[in-house]
Amino acid sequence: MPTTTTQQIDLNADMGEGFGPWVIGGGIDQRIMPHISSANIATGFHAGDPQTMRQTIRAAAAAGVQIGAHPGFRDLVGFGRRHIAASPEELTNDVLYQLGALREMAAAEGQMLHHIKLHGALYMHAARDRDFSAALIKALQQSAPTLPVYCMQSTALYQAATEAGQPVVREFFADRDYNAEGQLVFVRRTQALDPQTVAERVMIACREGRVRAIDDEWSAVDFDSICIHSDTPGADQLIAAIVESLHRAGIAVAPPAAAEPSPDQ
Amino acid sequence: MPTTTTQQIDLNADMGEGFGPWVIGGGIDQRIMPHISSANIATGFHAGDPQTMRQTIRAAAAAGVQIGAHPGFRDLVGFGRRHIAASPEELTNDVLYQLGALREMAAAEGQMLHHIKLHGALYMHAARDRDFSAALIKALQQSAPTLPVYCMQSTALYQAATEAGQPVVREFFADRDYNAEGQLVFVRRTQALDPQTVAERVMIACREGRVRAIDDEWSAVDFDSICIHSDTPGADQLIAAIVESLHRAGIAVAPPAAAEPSPDQ
Amino acid sequence: MPTTTTQQIDLNADMGEGFGPWVIGGGIDQRIMPHISSANIATGFHAGDPQTMRQTIRAAAAAGVQIGAHPGFRDLVGFGRRHIAASPEELTNDVLYQLGALREMAAAEGQMLHHIKLHGALYMHAARDRDFSAALIKALQQSAPTLPVYCMQSTALYQAATEAGQPVVREFFADRDYNAEGQLVFVRRTQALDPQTVAERVMIACREGRVRAIDDEWSAVDFDSICIHSDTPGADQLIAAIVESLHRAGIAVAPPAAAEPSPDQ
Amino acid sequence: MPTTTTQQIDLNADMGEGFGPWVIGGGIDQRIMPHISSANIATGFHAGDPQTMRQTIRAAAAAGVQIGAHPGFRDLVGFGRRHIAASPEELTNDVLYQLGALREMAAAEGQMLHHIKLHGALYMHAARDRDFSAALIKALQQSAPTLPVYCMQSTALYQAATEAGQPVVREFFADRDYNAEGQLVFVRRTQALDPQTVAERVMIACREGRVRAIDDEWSAVDFDSICIHSDTPGADQLIAAIVESLHRAGIAVAPPAAAEPSPDQ
Repeated sequence: MPTTTTQQIDLNADMGEGFGPWVIGGGIDQRIMPHISSANIATGFHAGDPQTMRQTIRAAAAAGVQIGAHPGFRDLVGFGRRHIAASPEELTNDVLYQLGALREMAAAEGQMLHHIKLHGALYMHAARDRDFSAALIKALQQSAPTLPVYCMQSTALYQAATEAGQPVVREFFADRDYNAEGQLVFVRRTQALDPQTVAERVMIACREGRVRAIDDEWSAVDFDSICIHSDTPGADQLIAAIVESLHRAGIAVAPPAAAEPSPDQ
Repeated sequence: MPTTTTQQIDLNADMGEGFGPWVIGGGIDQRIMPHISSANIATGFHAGDPQTMRQTIRAAAAAGVQIGAHPGFRDLVGFGRRHIAASPEELTNDVLYQLGALREMAAAEGQMLHHIKLHGALYMHAARDRDFSAALIKALQQSAPTLPVYCMQSTALYQAATEAGQPVVREFFADRDYNAEGQLVFVRRTQALDPQTVAERVMIACREGRVRAIDDEWSAVDFDSICIHSDTPGADQLIAAIVESLHRAGIAVAPPAAAEPSPDQ
Repeated sequence: MPTTTTQQIDLNADMGEGFGPWVIGGGIDQRIMPHISSANIATGFHAGDPQTMRQTIRAAAAAGVQIGAHPGFRDLVGFGRRHIAASPEELTNDVLYQLGALREMAAAEGQMLHHIKLHGALYMHAARDRDFSAALIKALQQSAPTLPVYCMQSTALYQAATEAGQPVVREFFADRDYNAEGQLVFVRRTQALDPQTVAERVMIACREGRVRAIDDEWSAVDFDSICIHSDTPGADQLIAAIVESLHRAGIAVAPPAAAEPSPDQ
Repeated sequence: MPTTTTQQIDLNADMGEGFGPWVIGGGIDQRIMPHISSANIATGFHAGDPQTMRQTIRAAAAAGVQIGAHPGFRDLVGFGRRHIAASPEELTNDVLYQLGALREMAAAEGQMLHHIKLHGALYMHAARDRDFSAALIKALQQSAPTLPVYCMQSTALYQAATEAGQPVVREFFADRDYNAEGQLVFVRRTQALDPQTVAERVMIACREGRVRAIDDEWSAVDFDSICIHSDTPGADQLIAAIVESLHRAGIAVAPPAAAEPSPDQ
């Protein structure tokens, strides 16, 4: 990606982002699951209790969707969308903790993890912070050296991962704004978006490798996966519109080839 | 155990039971670690944040001490010593979550888990509750079938584990009272105990396979490991007295032979 | 209540039982608020973060609904519907903590608290446990002696409150089963109920002072307030049906006369 | 303060900063309490469960020490010393919640609150952030308009409070470094300090109204209270040395006159 010959693309969404009695978006997971190829499952710190995690693993397995760990800041009340001034070491251990928790629950279901993707403010932090990215990748090289890391290409995490030989899957965010540098404009909550506008934006990104930034300039994007946030209002309609547009263009939704689980996971 | 020919016994203690800024017993872990053969590391729900977990893994590895996961009820403020009326499924998922968290952190340190031991009120719950014990062992058979479970012989968990072929390590509690049925008398906090009295009690248990219960009757005990709680006041002195008594009797402190990590852990 | 001359009855519901990014029932609070006379606002331990609490106080004030503290067990993931084996002293302090938290936030909005009502498993615990009920009422007699306590008549809490002179408001549960002793049958989640059936049940309770228990016997009930749980599926339709039935019978929905806030609250 | 005629000064310390089974500094509270005049009691978000809060209120009352609320960021594992990027509104509600919780527990013990002092990273945030300081003071003007706010003179919080007429008590930090602008140099943990050096530093601040900053320049300080952190290693010895030096200089340790609780608190 992106070339005119692209025949398949990964479509990922966050799943299992409820907690205890609560669900996101009135139970949107069930409506989204059939249409995506990989699910980022919340692992307990920003959302996702063990019951929810296990049920989400089962639901993904039943739908043939690949599963990844989706660790965030320890901040339930803020949904992991508030930066916390923690050290690289603290954050790395927080991620390992959450990654292992999901991996064990997946194993109890006979499933392997397909990837890891940081959540919210922690995703943004890793994108900018070289020290954390380096510490995290160093730890993953020990405990999960073949586990692909979802990230954006223009980030410190991408650089740390590729330098160390940790596999990566590059993302395009369908429901977030970009600035002129090709970086995400972070917001705590996303407003409802028009499905057709989002689908067109995705198709331009897929075919032309570019996205219109908030200053109306075009920014280059290169990616292996499209992300939709399940807590964006109307996320299921956004996904339906994207999937339909991809289908018309002859592009299949499928997990990234580079990110196949290897035997030792 | 227990026979007059016993030449070694496991000595286990809970480790890493601090949280964030707090430690147990003024940092008693460092004083206990050199004397035990296996450490039950708190895994976050009743104690043990990721930083503390990783530091404790390192300290155990440096001391040549085997490490196990020590999951408890989700109850920091009650230190996992208050029963919570949760379902077998909820509790099983809580345990898997915590087990995996520690396993991943151990892997990041190049270590393998040696065992799992439930904490506090969850240990007592599994001892009594057949449904939870069955659900837990069923899950462990999927994700960790060769991982030994520390438990008492007269319990539902022991029975569920042995029936399923999950390895077990049977414990004797040096610092807790027994009732006439050979079961533990559960307390939320233990008072300071006399080291010599505790050491003698342990030696009688080792040599004669019996313990004097709270009604002054003798109860039979059969075990592979001696447990001391690190939050019992003066735990380091209790351990010193026990280790010295064992040494005089020619009994070495060493991890249980049956519980050697097997390759697939 | 209950007499044929009753002209008004209180209708209470739990409000603000979201947490952080999550809401209950797809935002059912807004649909219920216009129809009730008193709101039990979750105070943080089983649900209800400070933001949600303050917004709910505002919404209740705007709707002319009386507000009460709704403290529960410290158990977000279990929504306070799992019993925790805590001491009377611990639970009393947990309640005081939550009560004060809401009272301060109400004061910041220029509002006074109208009542206190325990939540879920803590409500059930106080109904049965004399020690906790006595400890709680003793504490309330110090910090909130004129604050009415919502409870059922056949409970330890009712008895402790009335003996000490703490005001009470007696409840009837429209969406829960009763046993032959006139006690609630506790469940962690309620299934959807038929609005007409529930409304008829309420009208019989209001007019005839009795409720059909799960064994089909009739049990006497005497009450000042009707409770509907906002997390019961279709709670808004249950409330609409009840309000309509009450209206037809000439019974107004209004806060209990006995529970008017007194000046020192 | 500071003049050569000063005859009394407040000495404040954080108290009750344990959680559940854990205490700070091996139970240093008991050793410090007899020597201070006001206690900042942790209110649950960075430390301080309801049991600990109530016991600390009792201990302070028994020692004749004034009590204040000590709210922090919602961050137990980080002890409230990690900045969280929360909105002014969120943080204000967090503070109200914690303030009310302590106030209710104090009322249950027949005690009134004497002051409020923010903790750790939240204290530093309020010092810098005008929006949060303004929002917090606006809320306190509603719910606690006569409650003194402990703060440093060179801060946004001091300015917001004094502009609104909220009483203030200005602090000098005996165990923290100052920069040339008279602001604190924030650290997550303080190293052990020499008691005599700290006592001399305090006496110079009291008599000469200045403190030597980290660049060796002198910075002016004006204050009504001296603060020692109870988690600074050797805090009891620091306090003993300070109290002895004050005593020799004829300066009594007593709560600030300006901060006497007024009847409506």
